[in-house]
Amino acid sequence: MAARTVSALITGANRGLGLEMVKQMLEGPIPVGKLFASCRDPDGPKSEALQTLAKKYPDIIHIVRMDISDLCSIKESVQQVDSVLGKEGLNLLINNAGILTRCSLQDCTPEDMQSIFNTNVVGPMNIIKEFLPLLRDAAKASKIPGMSCSKAAAVSISSIMGSMEMVKGTYSLCPVTSYRVSKAGLNMLTVCAAEELKNDEILFSSLHPGWVRTDMGGEDGEIDAQESVEGMLRVLASLTEKQNGAFLDYKGKTVPW
Amino acid sequence: MAARTVSALITGANRGLGLEMVKQMLEGPIPVGKLFASCRDPDGPKSEALQTLAKKYPDIIHIVRMDISDLCSIKESVQQVDSVLGKEGLNLLINNAGILTRCSLQDCTPEDMQSIFNTNVVGPMNIIKEFLPLLRDAAKASKIPGMSCSKAAAVSISSIMGSMEMVKGTYSLCPVTSYRVSKAGLNMLTVCAAEELKNDEILFSSLHPGWVRTDMGGEDGEIDAQESVEGMLRVLASLTEKQNGAFLDYKGKTVPW
Repeated sequence: MAARTVSALITGANRGLGLEMVKQMLEGPIPVGKLFASCRDPDGPKSEALQTLAKKYPDIIHIVRMDISDLCSIKESVQQVDSVLGKEGLNLLINNAGILTRCSLQDCTPEDMQSIFNTNVVGPMNIIKEFLPLLRDAAKASKIPGMSCSKAAAVSISSIMGSMEMVKGTYSLCPVTSYRVSKAGLNMLTVCAAEELKNDEILFSSLHPGWVRTDMGGEDGEIDAQESVEGMLRVLASLTEKQNGAFLDYKGKTVPW
Repeated sequence: MAARTVSALITGANRGLGLEMVKQMLEGPIPVGKLFASCRDPDGPKSEALQTLAKKYPDIIHIVRMDISDLCSIKESVQQVDSVLGKEGLNLLINNAGILTRCSLQDCTPEDMQSIFNTNVVGPMNIIKEFLPLLRDAAKASKIPGMSCSKAAAVSISSIMGSMEMVKGTYSLCPVTSYRVSKAGLNMLTVCAAEELKNDEILFSSLHPGWVRTDMGGEDGEIDAQESVEGMLRVLASLTEKQNGAFLDYKGKTVPW
């Protein structure tokens, strides 16, 4: 009998951590059968690496066009994913896409706050809500009790920048007020979802990927995307109902709120 | 020599906790010389009690029209307050106005999330930024070292609903996802402001007023507005630089993030 595989969807999958997740999930600790790699512009020049990868694994990787700041676009992608998966549902949803503006409180404009909140919080909320029927299908189809990323889970890529407790130690180096506010909001969304949907046995948690050398993290990051994603996939594979609503870093350590 | 009095501004001052604050600050533990009571519609039927109070204390209470979701309106109110205070600056800014929608994650619309975030987070951010020159003036005019609400402070009326730690114990009774997300964001804004502006000796903190029997809190609240405000004013009077960036309830107890 072949090992049971899971279905997963990753947003912002064309570069940075998202692209590295797609690569590593092909051979990672969670065996993946169907991998939906979503991005805003799959045919654009920034998606070439993802396209090349998808051509190598045509049975596994499905590229999905999704603009996470546009509810209609999210709804269309749900239909597309649903038509591939059918009644088995979606096991693992990774809300990875997000944006960052480098601005302190004094530099921050209302438009910047609204735009970052819309992409980093309202987007993930819409995605969770729209994919909820598929996550529920996966939870019901599973014969395993409890919670896991192989059964039904939605994981948000958050940041220690969203930790109130850690502002003192990190603010002077990295003020990013609007980003911090959005990630604190995203963490609250995760905790609310975990509580509201626990009876559906869908697991929710927030992950801090580390300070990574990507376009977002910059050249001074402490680790590369490979190390970050190796860590995060190990953490994902280890999650149970005990970590429902938790905020963990890529090493599995709890991050204080 | 007359006791030194402070100047204060309270948003959402026409009803609920805001109106009670105006009443009690006239005789509270912080002696107030100028009290700016702002609300969206000072001439409307919901502002009659405030108008009556202002007529009794014409030298102290100044009613200011301010729609906290409108940056132009905030800028206009700054000019109005500045023209009264001059170089002494504004000592105490209380971001009290806020809105609540009773919706779980599954009921919550993107428009609801955006609207609550705009009023409960972007509004207070704009108010802090626009009143910052007046708070700086007050900090500079003060001869007292350290931080206090009599010197220069901006306090946000937050809620334990914004505490990630307390979601488990409160969510089934009170899901209010969009409100929780907004208050977590507001708390982060407070902590960022505290860190960014500590060298200006302006104090920032978040207060949980208790579960109060107001229009927002409903009839089942545990305390009335009087008890809540008595407690909060005692807490405000006790704040020093040690509580810069803190999240405290109306009894002065630290609320976990």
